[in-house]
Amino acid sequence: MILKKAYNMFFKLKNELTLAISTSGHGGMEAVMCNLLEPGDKVLITVNGIWGERASLMASRYGAQVCRIEAPLGSNFSLQEIEDALIKHQPSLLFVVQGESSTGVYQPIEGIGRICHKYNCLLAVDTVASLGGVPFYADRWEVDVVYSGSQKVLGAPPGLAPISFNKKAQQRIFSRKTPVKVFYWDMTILGDYWACFGNPRVYHHTISSTLLYGLREGLALIAEEGLENVINRHRMCALRLHNGLRDLGLEFLVEKESARLPTVNTIKVPTDVDWKTVTSYAMKYYFLEISGGLGPTVNKVFRIGLMGYNATNDKVDFALKILKEALEYARENKSSKL
Amino acid sequence: MILKKAYNMFFKLKNELTLAISTSGHGGMEAVMCNLLEPGDKVLITVNGIWGERASLMASRYGAQVCRIEAPLGSNFSLQEIEDALIKHQPSLLFVVQGESSTGVYQPIEGIGRICHKYNCLLAVDTVASLGGVPFYADRWEVDVVYSGSQKVLGAPPGLAPISFNKKAQQRIFSRKTPVKVFYWDMTILGDYWACFGNPRVYHHTISSTLLYGLREGLALIAEEGLENVINRHRMCALRLHNGLRDLGLEFLVEKESARLPTVNTIKVPTDVDWKTVTSYAMKYYFLEISGGLGPTVNKVFRIGLMGYNATNDKVDFALKILKEALEYARENKSSKL
Repeated sequence: MILKKAYNMFFKLKNELTLAISTSGHGGMEAVMCNLLEPGDKVLITVNGIWGERASLMASRYGAQVCRIEAPLGSNFSLQEIEDALIKHQPSLLFVVQGESSTGVYQPIEGIGRICHKYNCLLAVDTVASLGGVPFYADRWEVDVVYSGSQKVLGAPPGLAPISFNKKAQQRIFSRKTPVKVFYWDMTILGDYWACFGNPRVYHHTISSTLLYGLREGLALIAEEGLENVINRHRMCALRLHNGLRDLGLEFLVEKESARLPTVNTIKVPTDVDWKTVTSYAMKYYFLEISGGLGPTVNKVFRIGLMGYNATNDKVDFALKILKEALEYARENKSSKL
Repeated sequence: MILKKAYNMFFKLKNELTLAISTSGHGGMEAVMCNLLEPGDKVLITVNGIWGERASLMASRYGAQVCRIEAPLGSNFSLQEIEDALIKHQPSLLFVVQGESSTGVYQPIEGIGRICHKYNCLLAVDTVASLGGVPFYADRWEVDVVYSGSQKVLGAPPGLAPISFNKKAQQRIFSRKTPVKVFYWDMTILGDYWACFGNPRVYHHTISSTLLYGLREGLALIAEEGLENVINRHRMCALRLHNGLRDLGLEFLVEKESARLPTVNTIKVPTDVDWKTVTSYAMKYYFLEISGGLGPTVNKVFRIGLMGYNATNDKVDFALKILKEALEYARENKSSKL
């Protein structure tokens, strides 16, 4: 009950089907696909990184017709592009990633829900790498389904995926012609496991109490600081990092400033350094994880995460200091392996 | 790597596709079904409790033809019954539960694998409530797939399901005509996430490091005590409990002694008591969980679990003492609610 209240506060919604599924953030995506799609259904997926790719793969495995729109590396989608695609494909579900962690792209959500509903389409939003780091208003933005991960900005151990379906999405699930393929994520049953529908709780599986208490604590810490303050802290830290990166002469993968995700910052690897030397140096000498690319950005970027506990001025300054040192090392030691 | 060695020791096997999936024990069952079954495949499921029922449901959702053999409440299956059903149905997969936690029935596994392979059928065994509490020899018993749960006898937090596929099962998965429906449990990809096939590790999802360390510690404690000693401890505790239950004039749901699971003990609710009063009394005054029935045993039995940390003489004596007191209370207070 407390968790439900907290989610509703974080997602800014008032849904009854709000719970946490016993899975990584990945499972949140898959739960959306297997609950909201039936064989033959058409889904439109915005692809500007690894998560859109993965969502496409999942949806097609569940028998859906997958339509895609793609954006150039480091870019997001305009409302016009999305509306054109909705008109063209007439899907029953649109899938969008608010925070593309593989490219560091931020996708504004406001306006998309309204357009979707004009064309009788539901809107699902992935907020795994963004929730708590940027504003999110499920109800105001007319988002029908949203999910996140426990271990990103929420700062809890990995293993749970908060998820919420509004009335419209819920009705879609309950009026399916075929049962949800995956029993583990079947919301018609999980809803009763979490006592979402006012019925007595029914056993479904053994959720990890350990992780549940962890998530509760993560949410409590955010509530204590205040969600707006937390979001602001992430924004300020990202700006501080960006200024420091500019001072180091580095370039951003995401050119448009408004499209930069504050929680995952992608920096082009300078042509005169080997990225692996840089990240290995930071890890070896300072236990600092600067990630390489993922999916379409492999070999192309460094990724610096600023999430939850790690989004502080001290951590930003530390990361900048080590990155500078590591770049110098990599430039001076081009052939040596770390 | 250490986990893999430990599983191989616990399951008594030498499979390369041995790992833990990021899910409750339930997910182990579902991973077996979605990896080993394709639409139209025939699966034979032994049903003598809730787990066989659930496996049937899952398999049919993945499009398999489900054949079932059923045993009377509190009974297990003979080799002859299983062989007859294999001949009749000619399935490609047989699913058996070693420890039916809803009924407290132990199913001997030895011999089943040999029969399955005579009829070109794979054998999958659920050991969620049994592994570590009774002997298990995957290789010697020719078991093709086996899974368990982290929070039962293994004594770790819930949330991970150790699972292992032998070469034959692995080949079946890799020669599928259709992709595994569930990306989260697709062993062709998860195998590389766990570096099972000798390739470099490939990112798939974020496993819960918290749970992984927990499981590692649970396994280490068992290794320290010695698996054979742990199994023996569970056997001795169950016998001690059974003797005490007989002294209380109670009857077992499972009549055949050899069919009693030492880890989950099912006791018929005496006709002159309300079971809920008994279990509520134990919980309210002693924080002792005596469970009611589950699935086909609801309202019919008490279930006393003796697993891992709870399988000690002291705990057995404590449970017996409280059960006696709670039964007396229930007999004296027939109409009062606790």
